[in-house]
Amino acid sequence: MSLLVVGSVALDTVETPFGKAEDALGGSATFFAAAASLLHPVQLVGVVGDDYPTDALGFLAERGVDLAGLETAPGESFRWSGVYSYDLNSRETLETRLGVFADFRPKIPEQFRDAEWVFLGNIDPELQIGVLDQVREPRFVACDTMNLWIEIKRSRLLDLLRRVDLLMVNDAEARQLSGEHNLSKAAAFIMERGPRYLVIKKGEHGAILFTPHSVFFAPGYPLEVVFDPTGAGDAFAGGFMAHLAQSGRMEDADFRRAVVYGSVLGSFAVERFSIERFRDLTADEIEERTRQFRDMTMFELGVDAGV
Amino acid sequence: MSLLVVGSVALDTVETPFGKAEDALGGSATFFAAAASLLHPVQLVGVVGDDYPTDALGFLAERGVDLAGLETAPGESFRWSGVYSYDLNSRETLETRLGVFADFRPKIPEQFRDAEWVFLGNIDPELQIGVLDQVREPRFVACDTMNLWIEIKRSRLLDLLRRVDLLMVNDAEARQLSGEHNLSKAAAFIMERGPRYLVIKKGEHGAILFTPHSVFFAPGYPLEVVFDPTGAGDAFAGGFMAHLAQSGRMEDADFRRAVVYGSVLGSFAVERFSIERFRDLTADEIEERTRQFRDMTMFELGVDAGV
Repeated sequence: MSLLVVGSVALDTVETPFGKAEDALGGSATFFAAAASLLHPVQLVGVVGDDYPTDALGFLAERGVDLAGLETAPGESFRWSGVYSYDLNSRETLETRLGVFADFRPKIPEQFRDAEWVFLGNIDPELQIGVLDQVREPRFVACDTMNLWIEIKRSRLLDLLRRVDLLMVNDAEARQLSGEHNLSKAAAFIMERGPRYLVIKKGEHGAILFTPHSVFFAPGYPLEVVFDPTGAGDAFAGGFMAHLAQSGRMEDADFRRAVVYGSVLGSFAVERFSIERFRDLTADEIEERTRQFRDMTMFELGVDAGV
Repeated sequence: MSLLVVGSVALDTVETPFGKAEDALGGSATFFAAAASLLHPVQLVGVVGDDYPTDALGFLAERGVDLAGLETAPGESFRWSGVYSYDLNSRETLETRLGVFADFRPKIPEQFRDAEWVFLGNIDPELQIGVLDQVREPRFVACDTMNLWIEIKRSRLLDLLRRVDLLMVNDAEARQLSGEHNLSKAAAFIMERGPRYLVIKKGEHGAILFTPHSVFFAPGYPLEVVFDPTGAGDAFAGGFMAHLAQSGRMEDADFRRAVVYGSVLGSFAVERFSIERFRDLTADEIEERTRQFRDMTMFELGVDAGV
């Protein structure tokens, strides 16, 4: 049940009310792989410059992230820097330097082309389509996107949507893509355009899963301290896809559990800078937090409700 | 298991993107009673001017709202008018005319003073304390408040909190009262000051219940059309308290179900102007929506999680 991720591998400089990290490991594929590999092996495709501290990814390789698709190109690695507001609910991008990422044309190694579970991190929809042209017969394809592509590459993004099984976006992106403020209407709009499944992430307010059969709400995990929100969405995607790949099933119950694993991995991501929390995170800690999720949301109706 | 509500009985003029209602039945006690009385009898205490269309409340009286505590005073009824933004997420108050409400001193009729379940709607904390001085031995007291009282009557509000079992506020009020942005920290602050229970309402994002033993998250019910948000919070309180009074128990399971009933009644409130939706709402419709709530939030962990 191979799981492939294609996305950015970057160096992040992040300032939060709690401190600053410089040139820390970042990027959508990095966060995805760091989270997912705690549950399931991952094949990673991305590009870095010759300045990247590739050795720092060694701990990921040791626990099942196959870096055969991580290309090193001459030049500078993708760098992003940003600063978060005091309440961490908004952030300002200070600088984005694409470096070698500007010319990224994902090449899927031969041994990755039979991947069954594919996650297309947030890159140009043109490139996401290029990835799909290289994988042979994926069982399930999910993709992320962002406001930039919705604005300037809308047509190609819609082409992509016809070829994916699931779109994973935040609430602002779902609204922008659909032109609908109401999230139920936004979901209907999106699901008429290809994806049978949709996850709308709402940050601290949790996530909503839409399937052909049902809607599922997961709350945000109530952390007392959020240290650095960077990468939470990609860690969510990692936990989500890894649980699906691990289970090998696609019932609604599996997708719901996948949302819970996504929420749990996302909640761990924000406890420290970069992918630091994933270095020593254990399977027991993950399972414990999934149980806390269940305890936070379960209720029983009375006899009056006929159950 | 008598249930008493004290609050405003008003006439609302409301403009939403979908239309306008003039001098419609409104006020915290009105919305509370309209929702609660679908589940349990209610005793109402409030004041109206001699211009109030008291007959229009007749349908509430017919289904178990005891209006013996609704005083009519010479003068004008409390009037509020406001206009909602296109996305219904914010509203501007155009006018507030207190009328007879300015001199409201709640008098609890003798036959209401043994009330077991008491809800203090959002009025001056001084008056809320005055109500508690009149009820003999309530089993459970819940109260609402608002930004105005947190700002100008903070000390009296803190006196009140020491005497109530539950505070029900929205997220902005919880943050203002505690000075904490993080809702888990805000909850800890509030619960150290008296209430053993706390409900934080987050509008479309649902509600969080804090008890001495656990935290419970309920999502917002995903309506495709929200017609008029006015009164949703008071309808929530009505459903919440009525379920508790009906069950007669105070286990965490009862409080969780109460949150679900509150969410359900709140979700019905916004489907039409004023308390219109509560005229013909049936017990079956309420039970059906509680089941939808359960279906939207339930998930099962796998064998790996040890369950």
